[in-house]
Amino acid sequence: MSLTNATPLEVAQAASLSSRTLAVLPNDARNEALTSIHKALSDAKEEILAANARDLETANKAVLNGELSQSVLKRLDLGRKGKWEDMLKGILDVRDLEDPMGKVTLRTLLDDGLTLERVTCPIGVLLIIFEARPEVIANIASLAIKSGNAAILKGGKESTESFVAISTVISQALDTTSVPKGSIQLLKTRDVIPSLLSLDRYIDLVIPRGSNDLVRYIKNNTRIPVLGHSDGICHVYIHDDADKDTTVKVVVDCKTDYPAACNAVETLLVHEHVLSTVLPAVAEALLAKGVSLRCDEHSKAALAAALPKHLAVLLQDVSEADWDTEYTDLILSIKTIPTTDSVSKAIDHINRHSSHHTDAILTTSEETANKFLAGVDSADVFWNASTRMADGMRFGFGTEVGISTNKIHARGPVGLEGLMVYKYLIRGNGHAAGDYFEGEGGKKWKHQRLAF
Amino acid sequence: MSLTNATPLEVAQAASLSSRTLAVLPNDARNEALTSIHKALSDAKEEILAANARDLETANKAVLNGELSQSVLKRLDLGRKGKWEDMLKGILDVRDLEDPMGKVTLRTLLDDGLTLERVTCPIGVLLIIFEARPEVIANIASLAIKSGNAAILKGGKESTESFVAISTVISQALDTTSVPKGSIQLLKTRDVIPSLLSLDRYIDLVIPRGSNDLVRYIKNNTRIPVLGHSDGICHVYIHDDADKDTTVKVVVDCKTDYPAACNAVETLLVHEHVLSTVLPAVAEALLAKGVSLRCDEHSKAALAAALPKHLAVLLQDVSEADWDTEYTDLILSIKTIPTTDSVSKAIDHINRHSSHHTDAILTTSEETANKFLAGVDSADVFWNASTRMADGMRFGFGTEVGISTNKIHARGPVGLEGLMVYKYLIRGNGHAAGDYFEGEGGKKWKHQRLAF
Repeated sequence: MSLTNATPLEVAQAASLSSRTLAVLPNDARNEALTSIHKALSDAKEEILAANARDLETANKAVLNGELSQSVLKRLDLGRKGKWEDMLKGILDVRDLEDPMGKVTLRTLLDDGLTLERVTCPIGVLLIIFEARPEVIANIASLAIKSGNAAILKGGKESTESFVAISTVISQALDTTSVPKGSIQLLKTRDVIPSLLSLDRYIDLVIPRGSNDLVRYIKNNTRIPVLGHSDGICHVYIHDDADKDTTVKVVVDCKTDYPAACNAVETLLVHEHVLSTVLPAVAEALLAKGVSLRCDEHSKAALAAALPKHLAVLLQDVSEADWDTEYTDLILSIKTIPTTDSVSKAIDHINRHSSHHTDAILTTSEETANKFLAGVDSADVFWNASTRMADGMRFGFGTEVGISTNKIHARGPVGLEGLMVYKYLIRGNGHAAGDYFEGEGGKKWKHQRLAF
Repeated sequence: MSLTNATPLEVAQAASLSSRTLAVLPNDARNEALTSIHKALSDAKEEILAANARDLETANKAVLNGELSQSVLKRLDLGRKGKWEDMLKGILDVRDLEDPMGKVTLRTLLDDGLTLERVTCPIGVLLIIFEARPEVIANIASLAIKSGNAAILKGGKESTESFVAISTVISQALDTTSVPKGSIQLLKTRDVIPSLLSLDRYIDLVIPRGSNDLVRYIKNNTRIPVLGHSDGICHVYIHDDADKDTTVKVVVDCKTDYPAACNAVETLLVHEHVLSTVLPAVAEALLAKGVSLRCDEHSKAALAAALPKHLAVLLQDVSEADWDTEYTDLILSIKTIPTTDSVSKAIDHINRHSSHHTDAILTTSEETANKFLAGVDSADVFWNASTRMADGMRFGFGTEVGISTNKIHARGPVGLEGLMVYKYLIRGNGHAAGDYFEGEGGKKWKHQRLAF
């Protein structure tokens, strides 16, 4: 691990070469490396927090000058209650996960003495580009080492001092382990990104962790597969039989628990029959939390009639563009779903406008719920539960690499499994394909599934 | 299913819409559609073969004018022994495979009344671009319907008449089933490809079936994930303890069983110790089959000394470029592997020059074999078996979509499973994320694995 002056090509080649050693390193050796990183970071707490304080000082000035948002400043702060401890605990959590390498997922007897196996293995070289949060370095370095992948890390400029401090410590810690030097490499300057994105011969997967703009820029500028999501336009559909209390509780959580998160809801779809029964209670609870409601004609009329005047005046009109907007703020658009074929119409709206991230239904009917769960084309589809549940930690995956809205490979919250692929191994005894054919003298395939 | 005059955008939108209906169609309904296609094609054998004969006539003229290769002509011919029957049988084989949809692959109790499930589902819309072989239409249409994916098919101009005939029959057959019309769409003109490749909002996966040039063109011109391989540079390494008879048999099969195939061997790596013991027998057998041998200095010297003069004069010199060349012809390059760290050196050469498709080792040592199987970064890695085994049918997958050298999603021969992804479903009871936190009053996650 090194903060390097090498060219992007040299960095990628070194990572590629190291990845082959890392791919055959036993679990014990990978775990020892994580223990070393944990210890070294614990020992260096003071100097790292001092470096982080320098980043914060610079960032604070930028905030005062209006050059940086308050939320970036918050994300930068490693000294925030519990953050340092969480970062350290995350390393040990990853270490203690089951080894994801070398799992047999298929075994077939092709013919006598000829066996096929499908075995999990690392993808190879990951390029991880992230913005403010400095703790992501430790987090991602741990996941990469545990999964046997080499990683090239590029952090944001706001966290440079923290980044250098943490990476120097990790680098020194890894020097004493059997993880090869080129396995984790850190790059400081932003100008290397375009070159790295062109190195599809050496880099196998790009994982951007940051703003939608960052993800979209990367998706538009590389042939390397990208794991991530560029938008989080999530929906909640309130069916005509939804329980009022459940609905209020879930919708409020979806919108207000963490409005800037990608799994927060942006559009509420409401069955026409509950515009005057369930929706007013939902709207009142949301308005009390400071949420702006952008309503279509029907829902606005129903709410205007049902709500006290001082709340009704706060209602806004929705526009077509709202259906495709991620607010990342306390704003919610509301659309009325007509009574005929209502579930299909809700599904149809979602499949057209959702970012295929997370969508939920509120209903007391299992049949309706199952129709929704099957019909919505999103990574996560929930029944009577908050969209905010879409998260690797909540799913029980330990640390999460990110959330993917890809339609291939890994979808939804991505844990260690998403950093693995597989290879097919055949063990034979001089078997030739030309010996197998229909007709006289031809050998026949057995294709017998074996236990694994 | 229709041969359409619609714009690429209209085609893609219709496919996307249809894919949602197809994604919730039960297995029975999808199977019925395959039975209908099978019957309709059986009934229309004469007119389809007549259309194919017209393609063959045109192609034959092109071959005479030097505008088309003999091998394309061969691939066009639906009347070749067994080809028509194989095509029809393939449809029923796919029909009779296990339903790949709706399989639960993970189930976790997150908390009381809150359950997470990971369930397999179709990817969505496939764009399949293929060249000569007209039987691929029936083949791919079957795989798409069985896996619940919509497919847009674009065939090569040489097979236009066959393509129109087959697709008209399939189209009429599907009209009587519950598979929606837009699920399988056929495009005739080549000029639509660039537009289709830009429609990443509606098309989820591109599968090119054809020449390396086609695959490379597509990979360079789309943001949609591409499933396939652009090269097949496969290796066989002969270790110092390899059995001579096994080696001769396997290497001859690897090179001569079907030299134009992507899983044929292009480079033979030979341990220095067996240059004069095993290699001469291998070389003699290959030369007898008309294979040109391009040797490095050591192997050439050893063979020149061991072979009879009339064979020795046939030996050629290898150049650096050969290590990165796919011959698709009866040519083989030979490289000597030095005695120190020989297995590592063979692995290293392969990881640098292989197209990560299929590579094999010949050795009598299980330990050496396991080192090779773990160390080589290819989709298929074989011990004492021919590289030609890398094939969906031989692997027992039924019909194959193609062979992938991708590092994510599906690798190696791709069967139905490669056309599937998954989604996460949560069934709750009004659960909100904000209720779970450390400290007093916070709910705790159970994260208990459930059977599935």
